[in-house]
Amino acid sequence: MKSLVLERKDELSLRDFPAIDRVEETLGPRDVRIRLHTVGICGSDVHYYTHGRIGPFVVNEPMILGHEASGTVIETGAEVTTLTVGDRVCMEPGIPDPNSRATRLGMYNIDPAVRFWATPPVHGILRPTCVHPEGFTFKLPDTVSFAEAAMVEPLAVGVHAATKARVKPGDIGVVLGAGPIGLVTALSALAAGCARVYVSDLSEKKLEIAESLSPAITGVAVPGGDLVARVKAETGGWGADVVFEATGSPAAAAQVFEPLAPGGCVVMIGGQPDPIRYDAGAAMVREARVENIFRYAHVFPRCVAMLASGAIDVKPLITRTFAFDDSVRAFEIAASAPPADVKMQIELPQ
Amino acid sequence: MKSLVLERKDELSLRDFPAIDRVEETLGPRDVRIRLHTVGICGSDVHYYTHGRIGPFVVNEPMILGHEASGTVIETGAEVTTLTVGDRVCMEPGIPDPNSRATRLGMYNIDPAVRFWATPPVHGILRPTCVHPEGFTFKLPDTVSFAEAAMVEPLAVGVHAATKARVKPGDIGVVLGAGPIGLVTALSALAAGCARVYVSDLSEKKLEIAESLSPAITGVAVPGGDLVARVKAETGGWGADVVFEATGSPAAAAQVFEPLAPGGCVVMIGGQPDPIRYDAGAAMVREARVENIFRYAHVFPRCVAMLASGAIDVKPLITRTFAFDDSVRAFEIAASAPPADVKMQIELPQ
Amino acid sequence: MKSLVLERKDELSLRDFPAIDRVEETLGPRDVRIRLHTVGICGSDVHYYTHGRIGPFVVNEPMILGHEASGTVIETGAEVTTLTVGDRVCMEPGIPDPNSRATRLGMYNIDPAVRFWATPPVHGILRPTCVHPEGFTFKLPDTVSFAEAAMVEPLAVGVHAATKARVKPGDIGVVLGAGPIGLVTALSALAAGCARVYVSDLSEKKLEIAESLSPAITGVAVPGGDLVARVKAETGGWGADVVFEATGSPAAAAQVFEPLAPGGCVVMIGGQPDPIRYDAGAAMVREARVENIFRYAHVFPRCVAMLASGAIDVKPLITRTFAFDDSVRAFEIAASAPPADVKMQIELPQ
Amino acid sequence: MKSLVLERKDELSLRDFPAIDRVEETLGPRDVRIRLHTVGICGSDVHYYTHGRIGPFVVNEPMILGHEASGTVIETGAEVTTLTVGDRVCMEPGIPDPNSRATRLGMYNIDPAVRFWATPPVHGILRPTCVHPEGFTFKLPDTVSFAEAAMVEPLAVGVHAATKARVKPGDIGVVLGAGPIGLVTALSALAAGCARVYVSDLSEKKLEIAESLSPAITGVAVPGGDLVARVKAETGGWGADVVFEATGSPAAAAQVFEPLAPGGCVVMIGGQPDPIRYDAGAAMVREARVENIFRYAHVFPRCVAMLASGAIDVKPLITRTFAFDDSVRAFEIAASAPPADVKMQIELPQ
Repeated sequence: MKSLVLERKDELSLRDFPAIDRVEETLGPRDVRIRLHTVGICGSDVHYYTHGRIGPFVVNEPMILGHEASGTVIETGAEVTTLTVGDRVCMEPGIPDPNSRATRLGMYNIDPAVRFWATPPVHGILRPTCVHPEGFTFKLPDTVSFAEAAMVEPLAVGVHAATKARVKPGDIGVVLGAGPIGLVTALSALAAGCARVYVSDLSEKKLEIAESLSPAITGVAVPGGDLVARVKAETGGWGADVVFEATGSPAAAAQVFEPLAPGGCVVMIGGQPDPIRYDAGAAMVREARVENIFRYAHVFPRCVAMLASGAIDVKPLITRTFAFDDSVRAFEIAASAPPADVKMQIELPQ
Repeated sequence: MKSLVLERKDELSLRDFPAIDRVEETLGPRDVRIRLHTVGICGSDVHYYTHGRIGPFVVNEPMILGHEASGTVIETGAEVTTLTVGDRVCMEPGIPDPNSRATRLGMYNIDPAVRFWATPPVHGILRPTCVHPEGFTFKLPDTVSFAEAAMVEPLAVGVHAATKARVKPGDIGVVLGAGPIGLVTALSALAAGCARVYVSDLSEKKLEIAESLSPAITGVAVPGGDLVARVKAETGGWGADVVFEATGSPAAAAQVFEPLAPGGCVVMIGGQPDPIRYDAGAAMVREARVENIFRYAHVFPRCVAMLASGAIDVKPLITRTFAFDDSVRAFEIAASAPPADVKMQIELPQ
Repeated sequence: MKSLVLERKDELSLRDFPAIDRVEETLGPRDVRIRLHTVGICGSDVHYYTHGRIGPFVVNEPMILGHEASGTVIETGAEVTTLTVGDRVCMEPGIPDPNSRATRLGMYNIDPAVRFWATPPVHGILRPTCVHPEGFTFKLPDTVSFAEAAMVEPLAVGVHAATKARVKPGDIGVVLGAGPIGLVTALSALAAGCARVYVSDLSEKKLEIAESLSPAITGVAVPGGDLVARVKAETGGWGADVVFEATGSPAAAAQVFEPLAPGGCVVMIGGQPDPIRYDAGAAMVREARVENIFRYAHVFPRCVAMLASGAIDVKPLITRTFAFDDSVRAFEIAASAPPADVKMQIELPQ
Repeated sequence: MKSLVLERKDELSLRDFPAIDRVEETLGPRDVRIRLHTVGICGSDVHYYTHGRIGPFVVNEPMILGHEASGTVIETGAEVTTLTVGDRVCMEPGIPDPNSRATRLGMYNIDPAVRFWATPPVHGILRPTCVHPEGFTFKLPDTVSFAEAAMVEPLAVGVHAATKARVKPGDIGVVLGAGPIGLVTALSALAAGCARVYVSDLSEKKLEIAESLSPAITGVAVPGGDLVARVKAETGGWGADVVFEATGSPAAAAQVFEPLAPGGCVVMIGGQPDPIRYDAGAAMVREARVENIFRYAHVFPRCVAMLASGAIDVKPLITRTFAFDDSVRAFEIAASAPPADVKMQIELPQ
């Protein structure tokens, strides 16, 4: 089956790849088989391509990329009750052990046994079909396109962050970083109740895109824009109720408390390979709450519902679409990180 | 000073009324004097007019009506720091004892000593000027009109309800009742993260208005619309995450758990003079959480911020505006409760 | 295998009973086989005996009673990792569908598909051995006796109630009802942080037992003791932070808000076959939160840890122990509800 | 009036000191005058003595020390309703602006305008009498001694920490540090529901004291005791639900996530003058919540209630008592930090 294979660091090929154990061979009684339609390119896919690893996860053998996916159900296991052949769906890429302690407590995302697409040694789904558990496959209403549905995975990060922050209606939010995750976080923070969200970034182009998403988003250039002074000025000196760290930059992470209001919440989203500087004094005088998040749990159906109702619109984030046959080139372009591109997607032949 | 006075049940007059102790005479060091601009007519104002009482609050002496208000600061006390003459403002009508136990815990709305406009024996503000504490007077940005600002008071009830519900992004909501409070609650629930809100009412006209407010609002006629079946069908049998009771009808309140999902939340907003029927069995099998609310606390500046950013739009709810000289007639019309009218307002001469 | 069988309403026999499908025949890979040691008699066991039903659950065929149990592991399935033969254990009697929506969200207790011991048509475990999933079987430290371990099931109700109440250190609690569930709730409320718990009951004898459990428990006779006045007097007029309804009496349930402080929480524990009277006005002026609970989830290991450390002592609640051969007589005595007896237990031959 | 005056760094004198503006001269209508009975010596008092400053707070003029205090009401202001002459009381040392935004939201402890005893330029109360607001003065029941009451201030830090952690019954806790704050935190964590608390420290003597407080406290020596391995071993590999950082040591603070369970909470109590190392990766894979606290709010009456009921016993922490005339010597001893001393107190002549 033709697949986009990361052979090793810096080397991609679109080639035939044998059926994958546990991903495609067996259709269990509670599984469905899906024909892939659209797959988004994530920063982590690109990072495996350009670096061959992310932290402890190393690409030691050829691995199929891709984990932001939508498609169509083409076969259902014997005990499947909520899906039927022909259903348009999106899929949650991480599958936990249903009997683990974390899963039973409702926190399946932090079950250490979770198997996550395109994370070595687990393959991704940039190939024609895959097998997936019914419980992690979500039916799309007619009004949600395959392209939007393939955005549910990154959107889920933002929605999970806003949920953990426990955003209250009328909160003032700050999002550090206007990359794809920063932007879905800003949209999620607004959908979760923020009256206004300040988004900061080094790139003027990205701030332009951010502001184009909603009149309630204000872009603030770093360093010139003086984020802290601006937020304080516009909140009577009080500060932001929620600050989302979505850069992964140690310098940004070291300053999360400065724009924060007394009693406010910081959400750490961006990964940090090394320990960061934490201004405990600034955190204490505000009695800040810090939520550290890891992917998401239980939010895919919520995201689908918000796309369907118009509560969140991700279409402006999809800036380029490639045919599957052009997927190597798509990754080459993505690796060059053009600032005008938020999300690139690949469409598979149907 | 010319004021709209409820002389007794069923008798209103627009007449001169002497300066009111504690409301207008003294400008304390932390008070401001305000020239009223717009005052909304609330159901409670109308109820005092038509019934002469609400529960234990009885109109025994002539009382000025009105508590949904916006205006302009015309004088400031010596220690006022956040407001200045000329500021356009809206005002929170309840003033608690700052030293009460409830106030210190952050729950000033349930301080029994709270003094609330147009609640006997406290006068309202349907007259040219009033004096109010700086801490309960909120500056308006240029983009928020006086008419919108006078909507902050009823909106605050909905925002407080959605806050207490702890709505999460992607929740499915139900609002029982499409009167003014039901509608602001629906808007607040959406702003707080609901993907969709089902609003039920007996009046088709009111449901039409509800649906016109947002594509994410679905009206369901009672009894024909079969709310429970509809919500279950559209949530895969799961039910609504939050149910807001905004009718004040004992019959509606007795059925709040039926559309509710496992682990869901019911918010009781509508007042109930008598004990209601509570289906404890239905509540228990869902482990329902029930939040009982009383007015609001700390949400006025949040409402202003949401109106300013466009997160909530209350303009479609303002269906008729009267001159102050026509205010008796305005109340007569309001008392007849035309279903096409959501909120009537009175404008004072400037 | 000799079992205590409820043949039909009012008729118990200790007799041979064939192996039970799904309970004993098959030892799945993640199951353990347990030799029962101690089984407590629960009010629901007695109610099935005297009434033949509890609400919709009707005893239509002979059913083995008993669900409060401890024992010893005598065989382990192939994939069991946390238990070994010889381990002393207690068992959680309800087994949910691991793939249900409620279970995945961490609320397995309200999964409608849960199979619960001694709830028709599921048999209980008053017999020599049973098979149970590893995930619902909890190892006991040496310091926790079989008798204490068989108390974990009722204790779990109290601990779940206190957890849902979100008791804060120094809270003042009220428990309505001094039956077994009322008493474990009082102990749990204290363990969860209450500074003092007022327990009310009609029976002076039961109040004596309650007060003997801790100097921080105060018994208040109903009706003479004037619970509300007493709580108000001892809290400077403020009221109790948490009120637990553990009687199941409609009269008691109708008055839960009266002793409650502003911002307080009511936990509904006692089952109510019919709708109760709910004083919405009293709930609203306090902005009461009401938590409705159903059994428990995730608390068995917590209970075991608290028994082991001495944080909770249930030994004084175990008032009588019978040999398995006397179990019919034990139920006859339990059915007469002697007020001096809190919990009767049955010991099986080892 | 004879007072214990810190003249400057390293120089204390017990000498006459003139009446202090705002502390003693005027008895406002809602104030009480108190004759001091017992005052505890806090680490911060000692630090001002030995260093002349704590962070930005510098002793530039002679300052009276002491802020952990109990005494007797000897005069009441005209509007005081809850206290009367002769009442035995303890006092909360920080007085906020009742009209500040933080105070109104219920977070008066983080109001920047708070005036806190013995924090420059505000004097402490190591002198015969003081004036204090009724709202921050708490009546003692007969069963709580003056010595215990003077422990409420440090205890409040632990109770606030446990409250912010939202300890659930049966949680496993870790407290880093067995100084006075570590010990009150351990007691508070147990009172708040922890089944067991592991306390770590460098000093074997302090661990002995910790273990003597409760059979549910386990001391773990650092570095030899291998805290992380021990906690993991005794929780089936899961970890602690709550970790309290009570050392103020950067090295300890850098490792707070290691013993933490998935979904667990870290509470930062110990002050940190400089940024600390924060292992964001370790925090994220657990989805840790971090609460940063500053003193306490609303917990004094809770502490008094827990001392009265026996829920917490602080008597073993009071290791030495000095007469007021020996208070300079008491500070000299305290400055040498004998490991066997937890809390030293000074008694004033009555």
